[in-house]
Amino acid sequence: MARYNSFTSEEISAELAAVNAAYQGFKAKGLKLNMARGKPSAEQLDLSRPMLEVLGEEANLTSSDGTDCANYGGLSGIPEAKQLLARLLNDDPENIIAGGSSSLTLMFDAIARLWTFGTEGNAPWGTLERVKWLCPSPGYDRHFAICETFGMELIPVPLTDEGPDMDMVEQLIAVDPSIKGIWCVPQYSNPTGIVYSSQVVNRLASMACAAPDFRIFWDNAYSVHHLYPQHPVQVADIAAACVAAGNPNRYLKFASTSKITFPGAGISGLAASPSNIQEALKVMGIQMVGPDKLNQLRHGRFLSTDEALQNHMASHGKLLAPKFQLVDRKLSEGLKGTVECSWSSPQGGYFISFEAPAGTAKRIVALAKDAGVQLTGAGATWPYGQDPKDSNIRIAPSMPPLDELDQAMDVFVTCVKLAALEQLAE
Amino acid sequence: MARYNSFTSEEISAELAAVNAAYQGFKAKGLKLNMARGKPSAEQLDLSRPMLEVLGEEANLTSSDGTDCANYGGLSGIPEAKQLLARLLNDDPENIIAGGSSSLTLMFDAIARLWTFGTEGNAPWGTLERVKWLCPSPGYDRHFAICETFGMELIPVPLTDEGPDMDMVEQLIAVDPSIKGIWCVPQYSNPTGIVYSSQVVNRLASMACAAPDFRIFWDNAYSVHHLYPQHPVQVADIAAACVAAGNPNRYLKFASTSKITFPGAGISGLAASPSNIQEALKVMGIQMVGPDKLNQLRHGRFLSTDEALQNHMASHGKLLAPKFQLVDRKLSEGLKGTVECSWSSPQGGYFISFEAPAGTAKRIVALAKDAGVQLTGAGATWPYGQDPKDSNIRIAPSMPPLDELDQAMDVFVTCVKLAALEQLAE
Repeated sequence: MARYNSFTSEEISAELAAVNAAYQGFKAKGLKLNMARGKPSAEQLDLSRPMLEVLGEEANLTSSDGTDCANYGGLSGIPEAKQLLARLLNDDPENIIAGGSSSLTLMFDAIARLWTFGTEGNAPWGTLERVKWLCPSPGYDRHFAICETFGMELIPVPLTDEGPDMDMVEQLIAVDPSIKGIWCVPQYSNPTGIVYSSQVVNRLASMACAAPDFRIFWDNAYSVHHLYPQHPVQVADIAAACVAAGNPNRYLKFASTSKITFPGAGISGLAASPSNIQEALKVMGIQMVGPDKLNQLRHGRFLSTDEALQNHMASHGKLLAPKFQLVDRKLSEGLKGTVECSWSSPQGGYFISFEAPAGTAKRIVALAKDAGVQLTGAGATWPYGQDPKDSNIRIAPSMPPLDELDQAMDVFVTCVKLAALEQLAE
Repeated sequence: MARYNSFTSEEISAELAAVNAAYQGFKAKGLKLNMARGKPSAEQLDLSRPMLEVLGEEANLTSSDGTDCANYGGLSGIPEAKQLLARLLNDDPENIIAGGSSSLTLMFDAIARLWTFGTEGNAPWGTLERVKWLCPSPGYDRHFAICETFGMELIPVPLTDEGPDMDMVEQLIAVDPSIKGIWCVPQYSNPTGIVYSSQVVNRLASMACAAPDFRIFWDNAYSVHHLYPQHPVQVADIAAACVAAGNPNRYLKFASTSKITFPGAGISGLAASPSNIQEALKVMGIQMVGPDKLNQLRHGRFLSTDEALQNHMASHGKLLAPKFQLVDRKLSEGLKGTVECSWSSPQGGYFISFEAPAGTAKRIVALAKDAGVQLTGAGATWPYGQDPKDSNIRIAPSMPPLDELDQAMDVFVTCVKLAALEQLAE
């Protein structure tokens, strides 16, 4: 079939009728499918079931440094957890705080500390007239929501295939001291799946910032989440780059095991400079006695070697890769040559980023919802939920079984066509 | 022996020499004993070992409302956890947020939210010229530290046997809108072990506050922690009292299982009015996807009935009561009739509050430390660590085995005598 936008108006009417009939057919099925969030599937969760046996009634609950994990104490976490998180964060265990079950909480709390207490003697951000934040877009809605909640002004920055548009970033941060930070998902970015180039990492580390307390929030959420473990990638280390550039306190690295073991019941980590770690611990020591060390011990013992972690992630990859391949095939078969669109083919992570014809993303998501297929809200990948082109849709293929994903993608493709044709028919 | 303060100076010198000789004898032993923090003993921790088997590899990980506890979601916690926390908080499960492993974090975060976002349309506390907080003293050092960290002005209020001095509280809060809250450990208070009277509870609930956003932080940390379970007490419910008084949003109730199952690896809960719960969830939903539901499930299934909880706490009581009795006996035998002092005889909780002769608490703690016995820092039970009379010492007898506690108390008694005699000899 030819491209829709080369159709005559009669051809559009005819195709619209045909696609609409197909859509109504899907609607009549009363489907209930979900591709909204990056949730691991039941099969993936089963991979970590053996971890539930690691700490049984007779287990030794003492960590390698002699800490009783069943009692109070140990603010920065136990060695076993720091070792595992060091693998995820590409850092040394001594630079790491091993936290609770949510890296999102580590990020929120890091901003909350900067907001209320400031850093390195600079004014707390909450006392400033305005605070701005760079948001490479499309990006992760929960990141943006944290900044919105604190009342920051969010500045979208285009995300290229190599990372944020660094010319724009450098121009902005060089002159505006109210720009205090940037969100980065540097490897298998959410949602486009790109990996920051070494050049981008170095420019982020070395750029001249008007704000002395500018911070890179480096959410390396997918550092070991390869779809094809035989070809793993590893983004350049922001810590090493910042140290080399003479800006050792510029970065905060985050990771968690949520998509390694159990989402919401894993462990999280923050890696940063000694100064940043000390500042964090000072407040965290008031906020808590310490993290859940039993769960840290469970994780550290379950994934106690590089090899154990690699094998475990390879098993995840084996379950995930066919789903990403199915989505890619369905999009190719259904849309190539007809609708003006594009999508990412990531080598890891949890998402496929779909670029629909401008002005149709909201309509596509609404159509899919009416046909029983839940997608991430259109616009969610942009600050304030406002996608300027109304074109980006995040597809999360991990959760549904393959047969459901197959159906959901048929619905999706039909919705994309329908929205494109509706637009052309206007 | 007669009272020291009726001694002649010759008698004092002689007794001082004798007690000092005994003290030097203890010092020579190179002891290493700890009565500093309210940590459960190894035997107490063993009581919860069976909980580690509750979720094994084959366990059903779905909560009673159908939530998959191994995946994302469920911001306010699962029904099993809310049910258990409702027992601790004397409230309905529907009024409860079941959180992570630390109730201290729930408290810190509650203050952080009020600080940054405010409540019910009132100005965020962080934007005010000054914020003051009432601290019934002696009280819990970690409570006071939260307020200090946020830069509040801490106002000590005497803690009587029935609760805070309510005449003083009412006078202060009636006229000063900058007083925003009060810390309360209403049952088996830390450290004095007293239980708030119903009259105090009702006065707290109904008093006229100049600040419309005055909040009672009700840390019911020891609600089921009876030393003598055949005679349990239950403090009157602040929630019911506040509702009855027409101040339904005045209270925030906190509890955790840290001293029920595993300290630092338990679950925590916040109970509050629907309005307060909604406000909290709004920010918490930005801060996290949800709490560790697997640990909530483990707890909810392990302590799934009133009876299971009561039996479990009775086992704790059986291990703790002999330690409290030993301390009481040692203090009586060692100090009654000689040193002007007093101490509490709590029916629950984790502490004995010791009132030494004014001006000797710091000296006693220092002497004990030099002899290898670690006590909670003198002054810790007062805001800013400043005990105006330098008299209060918190004794935490739970952690050491009985034979170590016996030795530690011999040292303690000797230090009290020595400090008292030194003072009289001046």
